[in-house]
Amino acid sequence: MIENYNEYKKMIDEHLMDCIPAVAPISSTLYEAMKYSLQAGGKRLRPVLLLASCEFAGGDSRKAIPYACALEYIHTYSLIHDDLPAMDDDELRRGKPTNHMVYGPGIATLAGDGLLNTAFEVMYKNLFLVFDDPAAMKRGIKAAYAIAKGAGVGGMVAGQVADLEAENTEQGSNELLEYIQLNKTGALIRAAVEAGLYLGGADDEMMEHMLSYAENLGLAFQIADDILDVRGNAGELGKNTGEDAKNDKLTYVSLNGMDASQQRLHELTQNAVDAIADYYDNAIFFRELVLNLEKRTY
Amino acid sequence: MIENYNEYKKMIDEHLMDCIPAVAPISSTLYEAMKYSLQAGGKRLRPVLLLASCEFAGGDSRKAIPYACALEYIHTYSLIHDDLPAMDDDELRRGKPTNHMVYGPGIATLAGDGLLNTAFEVMYKNLFLVFDDPAAMKRGIKAAYAIAKGAGVGGMVAGQVADLEAENTEQGSNELLEYIQLNKTGALIRAAVEAGLYLGGADDEMMEHMLSYAENLGLAFQIADDILDVRGNAGELGKNTGEDAKNDKLTYVSLNGMDASQQRLHELTQNAVDAIADYYDNAIFFRELVLNLEKRTY
Repeated sequence: MIENYNEYKKMIDEHLMDCIPAVAPISSTLYEAMKYSLQAGGKRLRPVLLLASCEFAGGDSRKAIPYACALEYIHTYSLIHDDLPAMDDDELRRGKPTNHMVYGPGIATLAGDGLLNTAFEVMYKNLFLVFDDPAAMKRGIKAAYAIAKGAGVGGMVAGQVADLEAENTEQGSNELLEYIQLNKTGALIRAAVEAGLYLGGADDEMMEHMLSYAENLGLAFQIADDILDVRGNAGELGKNTGEDAKNDKLTYVSLNGMDASQQRLHELTQNAVDAIADYYDNAIFFRELVLNLEKRTY
Repeated sequence: MIENYNEYKKMIDEHLMDCIPAVAPISSTLYEAMKYSLQAGGKRLRPVLLLASCEFAGGDSRKAIPYACALEYIHTYSLIHDDLPAMDDDELRRGKPTNHMVYGPGIATLAGDGLLNTAFEVMYKNLFLVFDDPAAMKRGIKAAYAIAKGAGVGGMVAGQVADLEAENTEQGSNELLEYIQLNKTGALIRAAVEAGLYLGGADDEMMEHMLSYAENLGLAFQIADDILDVRGNAGELGKNTGEDAKNDKLTYVSLNGMDASQQRLHELTQNAVDAIADYYDNAIFFRELVLNLEKRTY
């Protein structure tokens, strides 16, 4: 198994554009707008998790690349739509003007739609490669379905709606916040791990441990992000800090303060590490990933 | 084969809401916003075409219902996004306020995203029902892939981008217009027929004839729509007429005048009828469908 985050990331970056189906020349604007946001940087956390989970379960990560790219298309579409004037109205993302600042909100909406659709198109297309192997077809369908559920109305979209509604409510609660975080960011991170495990052919026990890891990682990731929005350096983060407070966003920090947030992040990190403790050295990659996340916030 | 459009339409209307995956109660807004547009009326042309094509090829239309619903989710999402202030900025659709007029543009954007995602989620879920039947799995994958391609960046989304861009150009051409119409409306209508034929197990010859029918139907449908925007009665249509001219929309009527448009509609109708002439009485349903479309415009 590859132990290096950046090796996985390189696999994604190399294939992210050529997985997109050919777009007729007259729609070069659409292609350019999609490409702009796909290539605006980003950690590629979700696709890396998918590839690593696939290998962890004994699969070949190269065959999982289309699924990994699909996850990044979905994540990128969600950022483009989140940034729209009708939603968070953000002007800067990863150190660059947001999609709608460059292409206008109409094209940005469609670039997001195009990316979401492309994710599924790519995953269906990939199933044709295993048409003579029903077992592989089933693994692919399970993986794609996990991604669809994570991205959809019982996952990410539900979280985005709750997040948007929470901006207009007087008082937030930790219950509402956890619902938002489990769905808005957590569901797709969980789906990344789940899909990778299906593709790699994991057994039920590994599935259970790793999904517990993924859920804690997802929550930790969001709290780390909230902490960095207060403490971070805009130049390093590539986005304006203090945006959450400006937008009256419901975050763990705004509800519980910085100390409690750092404490909660530590707990979640520990839960994630504990969930995969049985795998000892085989799970170094996943352990380092969540520990580094916590370190980033000091 | 069912010969009656409304019987197919009833099958869709009955299942359109229960195909949507359960949405947690906290996101009732999302569910309500999706439901609002799904139940705002509509002809259900695309899902009806899918069910009828499935039966025409010898399949069981009841098993095709999830795919038919998926098409209607995709069509509905495209209308919600098209109507947004960032796009066409329409206030009325099918005689009712558009989604964003009721729920605001943020929720409307997410309701559209949710519907697009749900379409794919439902089609994946349906594949689990045929896990022990690799041939049925392949038919389902081919159908879903046809729908994904029709909806995506080589189909409907490309047409929407070109349409949006055409509003800001000085001079339109018939080439550009045909590109827009083939993609913006044509691609999903073609995909409806293609997916239905795959599900029903059509042979190559039937596929060829029916896709030629579908392409001519798609173009005819769009020109009929353009004619009705000039000539129609707002009350009967459930939307404001004269909107195309007001928005400087590129349409066949605006480019070529009313007489040439009626003539072109007649040609396309005849092409569609000719494409399925070999099937005599077996194709009555499809022949009537396109002939009634032309009649509506007199």
